[in-house]
Amino acid sequence: MRTDQRRADELRPVKITTNYLLTAEGSALIEVGHTRVLCAASIEDSLPAFLRNSGRGWVTAEYAMLPRAPSERNTREVNKGRPSGRTHEIQRLIGRSLRSIVDMHALGERTIMVDCDVIQADGGTRTAAITGGYVAMALAVKKLMAFGAIKKNPLRDMLAATSVGVVRGEAMLDLCYDEDSSADVDMNVVMTGAGEFVELQATAEKVSFQDDRLIEMISLARQGLKHIFEYQKAAIEGQ
Amino acid sequence: MRTDQRRADELRPVKITTNYLLTAEGSALIEVGHTRVLCAASIEDSLPAFLRNSGRGWVTAEYAMLPRAPSERNTREVNKGRPSGRTHEIQRLIGRSLRSIVDMHALGERTIMVDCDVIQADGGTRTAAITGGYVAMALAVKKLMAFGAIKKNPLRDMLAATSVGVVRGEAMLDLCYDEDSSADVDMNVVMTGAGEFVELQATAEKVSFQDDRLIEMISLARQGLKHIFEYQKAAIEGQ
Amino acid sequence: MRTDQRRADELRPVKITTNYLLTAEGSALIEVGHTRVLCAASIEDSLPAFLRNSGRGWVTAEYAMLPRAPSERNTREVNKGRPSGRTHEIQRLIGRSLRSIVDMHALGERTIMVDCDVIQADGGTRTAAITGGYVAMALAVKKLMAFGAIKKNPLRDMLAATSVGVVRGEAMLDLCYDEDSSADVDMNVVMTGAGEFVELQATAEKVSFQDDRLIEMISLARQGLKHIFEYQKAAIEGQ
Amino acid sequence: MRTDQRRADELRPVKITTNYLLTAEGSALIEVGHTRVLCAASIEDSLPAFLRNSGRGWVTAEYAMLPRAPSERNTREVNKGRPSGRTHEIQRLIGRSLRSIVDMHALGERTIMVDCDVIQADGGTRTAAITGGYVAMALAVKKLMAFGAIKKNPLRDMLAATSVGVVRGEAMLDLCYDEDSSADVDMNVVMTGAGEFVELQATAEKVSFQDDRLIEMISLARQGLKHIFEYQKAAIEGQ
Amino acid sequence: MRTDQRRADELRPVKITTNYLLTAEGSALIEVGHTRVLCAASIEDSLPAFLRNSGRGWVTAEYAMLPRAPSERNTREVNKGRPSGRTHEIQRLIGRSLRSIVDMHALGERTIMVDCDVIQADGGTRTAAITGGYVAMALAVKKLMAFGAIKKNPLRDMLAATSVGVVRGEAMLDLCYDEDSSADVDMNVVMTGAGEFVELQATAEKVSFQDDRLIEMISLARQGLKHIFEYQKAAIEGQ
Amino acid sequence: MRTDQRRADELRPVKITTNYLLTAEGSALIEVGHTRVLCAASIEDSLPAFLRNSGRGWVTAEYAMLPRAPSERNTREVNKGRPSGRTHEIQRLIGRSLRSIVDMHALGERTIMVDCDVIQADGGTRTAAITGGYVAMALAVKKLMAFGAIKKNPLRDMLAATSVGVVRGEAMLDLCYDEDSSADVDMNVVMTGAGEFVELQATAEKVSFQDDRLIEMISLARQGLKHIFEYQKAAIEGQ
Repeated sequence: MRTDQRRADELRPVKITTNYLLTAEGSALIEVGHTRVLCAASIEDSLPAFLRNSGRGWVTAEYAMLPRAPSERNTREVNKGRPSGRTHEIQRLIGRSLRSIVDMHALGERTIMVDCDVIQADGGTRTAAITGGYVAMALAVKKLMAFGAIKKNPLRDMLAATSVGVVRGEAMLDLCYDEDSSADVDMNVVMTGAGEFVELQATAEKVSFQDDRLIEMISLARQGLKHIFEYQKAAIEGQ
Repeated sequence: MRTDQRRADELRPVKITTNYLLTAEGSALIEVGHTRVLCAASIEDSLPAFLRNSGRGWVTAEYAMLPRAPSERNTREVNKGRPSGRTHEIQRLIGRSLRSIVDMHALGERTIMVDCDVIQADGGTRTAAITGGYVAMALAVKKLMAFGAIKKNPLRDMLAATSVGVVRGEAMLDLCYDEDSSADVDMNVVMTGAGEFVELQATAEKVSFQDDRLIEMISLARQGLKHIFEYQKAAIEGQ
Repeated sequence: MRTDQRRADELRPVKITTNYLLTAEGSALIEVGHTRVLCAASIEDSLPAFLRNSGRGWVTAEYAMLPRAPSERNTREVNKGRPSGRTHEIQRLIGRSLRSIVDMHALGERTIMVDCDVIQADGGTRTAAITGGYVAMALAVKKLMAFGAIKKNPLRDMLAATSVGVVRGEAMLDLCYDEDSSADVDMNVVMTGAGEFVELQATAEKVSFQDDRLIEMISLARQGLKHIFEYQKAAIEGQ
Repeated sequence: MRTDQRRADELRPVKITTNYLLTAEGSALIEVGHTRVLCAASIEDSLPAFLRNSGRGWVTAEYAMLPRAPSERNTREVNKGRPSGRTHEIQRLIGRSLRSIVDMHALGERTIMVDCDVIQADGGTRTAAITGGYVAMALAVKKLMAFGAIKKNPLRDMLAATSVGVVRGEAMLDLCYDEDSSADVDMNVVMTGAGEFVELQATAEKVSFQDDRLIEMISLARQGLKHIFEYQKAAIEGQ
Repeated sequence: MRTDQRRADELRPVKITTNYLLTAEGSALIEVGHTRVLCAASIEDSLPAFLRNSGRGWVTAEYAMLPRAPSERNTREVNKGRPSGRTHEIQRLIGRSLRSIVDMHALGERTIMVDCDVIQADGGTRTAAITGGYVAMALAVKKLMAFGAIKKNPLRDMLAATSVGVVRGEAMLDLCYDEDSSADVDMNVVMTGAGEFVELQATAEKVSFQDDRLIEMISLARQGLKHIFEYQKAAIEGQ
Repeated sequence: MRTDQRRADELRPVKITTNYLLTAEGSALIEVGHTRVLCAASIEDSLPAFLRNSGRGWVTAEYAMLPRAPSERNTREVNKGRPSGRTHEIQRLIGRSLRSIVDMHALGERTIMVDCDVIQADGGTRTAAITGGYVAMALAVKKLMAFGAIKKNPLRDMLAATSVGVVRGEAMLDLCYDEDSSADVDMNVVMTGAGEFVELQATAEKVSFQDDRLIEMISLARQGLKHIFEYQKAAIEGQ
């Protein structure tokens, strides 16, 4: 039994509040258990230098955590003068993942900037950010299409992420913070709606692992992601 | 008539959600019109160097704005490597204001750190941060007293803030962003529950002003603050 | 009686040396008691991005303190990698104040940059910087007009500042450092030559205050500023 | 056929020069094709704060690239004031990987710092850094044991890494830069000498992928790593 | 003939105002032609880590230029986040030079920090800083001895500096800015009162040079320094 | 006798490996005793702002030390956020020296960037960097001429550097680290192939010195440089 009474293959409750912000082109407040991430998608006319006049667009992401999101207050990164290595690693993962399902020619010469700000942190913030970031991006794209700014939907598929891990010898879906910090293996899986891999990052925190364990974890993740895609669909359509 | 149909002496709707965070000792999400600020009070055992072994405590504040809080996305300050001058100015104001009503000996050798993060910005974020920051601090102090960590309530009074300004020649209470950016004079008033001044900052953005205007603005602010103190009281007690 | 034998409504001796620098378009070394601030106005052809091709000019200010200006040496801010919050707060105040009396269309597409460097600090450095900064700016503008670069005087009025405070229960004009650090209330007043307010910042350092105290302090400031405007006039004309 | 005439399952030539530096406790210059990484292991008595007086040691890594390692010169990161996100991501990966095979109690209260500096870059620098970093660390540990500073070998297993990818629809081992930059999928595998996974990072750069492709890539990596462990063994023993 | 009518072997007018600051333990405003440098010596009880509990003291220096010291305004280094290479090079030279004549055991466990701030710049600021820095340090040491804090004078000799250069084929003493920027060779000489070298830095800006030129320049410098030592002596004694 | 059995006027063994890098236009790994510096010359089309459209080129240099080059590991400068004063001082010296022999009109509108990275440090790294940097630059220029990109050789002469010093009262050539750290006087001499001075920096670390000592040191340096020019010539031609 897990600390919050879940089965090994059970997700925490997921809640997605769309258009949480009046200001952003698309936004979603995603809650996965106690983890809460505010995702905001902004459409910007600028492009990174290497894409100017290429006829192609760009998608990128930034990730941050409010100082009191974790149970112990963190120093603000701005006061250290630079984002931490962890922040860099996570926002690069989010950006790469979101880009993988976007047709950059269909998007045209504009950037979608997805800001993922963790309001409260209880494990799985990077995967919640990808799942919520997709929703925010989809809403922003919907608005672009409604305005006639783009003709063809640049989103080729849906995108979501979840974590799995090995805790006390057992593979478990969607780790909360306590489970994550005592896990032997920790794995994040980013998948398309069609069930194909976009990113797969497995880390042996304490105990190295073998192929069968890998396959077991992937299967758990796939199962959880099916539910998450439904939450996303409901959120985007209900809106 | 104002853009949102308010009278000149009318506040925007105020909503205070207490204990918005599970993680912080005290927290409040304050909404003033479309402005939304998440205030979190943390109790820390550390003290700034000049107060160590003095028997006295400290209160300080940090202020930041999520990149998509305003209607045009802002670059994150961490990516510029330092907080802007505006951020410094505001967080110094919040910290000074909160300290003014705290009995530092009663607080004892601990720091209350109040984080004010603007989720959505439509004018008056610094005054909302002071008003909400007081609530978060009061809740944290309540918890400290409930735990018996301190005997005597270190809060000598309540504290709240609001803005007034002169827009198109008329003095108005609680400016929203559009009013603020076209104001001739802009003034922030921080007051104790007993109706005494803690901070008073008036700036002639365009047109210098005279004593009678100053008195008119102060009177408007005092009127608005009476209501704000009631919202605070209800929030803290209802909780 | 005050530490330096002044009456409560008495300024410290003021001395303004104009054109202290050969290099700057306008400059003034202002001494207020032991406080010494070197103010230099530079005329630059560049403009901040939001004003390019607007037909309007800009005025801005920078403030810094030499490490040995105070009685205890300060670490240089460059070695900490960024200006402190106090520096930001002060230079924003100086810039806003100076801008308030300038007709930006008459100035034309150029920037006046006013550098205020504190050589020796004994309280009131920010108000001395505003008073001296006005003189430096006025001298630079005079030179611009003498060269025929601008036709119409862009300075709509004079500008000066002073501090007042409540020390040991008594309102006093022009606080020196010792008085300032033990003051209950501290207030800076920036005024036009016509006697109208430009900035008014009152802070209850220890004891909150009421309307009558505010009125008393404003009256003291107004009295001191009358003398300061005379010193400015003499300096600019004598030059 | 690949650009350098290799078969899909063929490694580039690997050369490991041990004790390349006189200064470091352990060092190895590793060459994988044209990629050259200088790895230096330093034994330090200091520990990160969270491990002081814990009886346990620590292993960490830093990664950097000389400006002229790539075919186009890079700006030095020190001149941008901070390591890039890519650098952070890579050095965190190296550190985590090296830690996974170390018995921190056997190491005792000391840090092994592994510096990986890329002298010339032609793809696979992070996996070369892990492979070479292991050798440098093993040599430093050997020296510690020879000096009697530690009794029990803290290295529980060997450790190496390689990359695989899908290029023009075909899975290939050990990508060089040209292959890497046109790959559809890119995957880094870090493995123990016993053939268990330590890190597994697969990224769909262009085309998402399925389980059978994942299994094919893992099998290629495992095959290549067998050879790499032999190169490591020869280098450490020959030395 | 030189631009300011001086002979090739003639110094610019030198003026040293001692105790220019009330705040510093020792201070001197040195003027060499239009170059003006404010030098302040502070006595601090702290020591760099490598000297703690060594029974020895330390002397170090910092150098900076006010933004409007040169005829074209410079950006403040604090706004670039770091001192420039030029600043580093100069303050290291000043510190090394001042240390060369100090008996660190006689000084005891304290630091003399010499701040050299250029108020106006017309060439030769680094040599003026050394000459003035010596005076400030000597005055601070005098005060330490008067207070009985140290028994034996830690200054083993006097110290001064000047520049020489080759301009349009002719060796000249004490270059002003115009001469310096068109010089073929530029040389700074730091000497003890006894006429021995402490630092000697010759740079061929445009034309490399031979031994006889070196000897000619050294002889000019030696001649100028004789006068500078007299100015220093008069300043320190007159005070 | 010196620690490594050399005579006072004897260089350490010098070895120059040309074209150590495939990536750079010109490169040389220079070894002087245990000191090893990798020098890479890059040809870039960009120019500093002050030279654009001037018909002239530019030469500049950057210097850095790998963290484990010295016998005690150094913190990476990127992690402190800025290059140290020492780094600035050295790279400015290298750049100035290299520029002194280049005909900037013949070079044309391009920059030669010379990166000098110290792989292992045993004293004399800055002079080795100049000597090796010249070789790397010469090889890059050779390539430019072979490609017909420039017609006239922009290198007017050769360039090399060495150090001399006074150790235990005796003048010695080419100090290793141990000698350097106990030297009374330390001097770096940069010379052209024709035997003229380009830079000459003498520092009295402990004992000030007189003219005859200066002449003795210069003569030792000149003698050593004769051999170094031969090593350079052999390296460039042999290549």
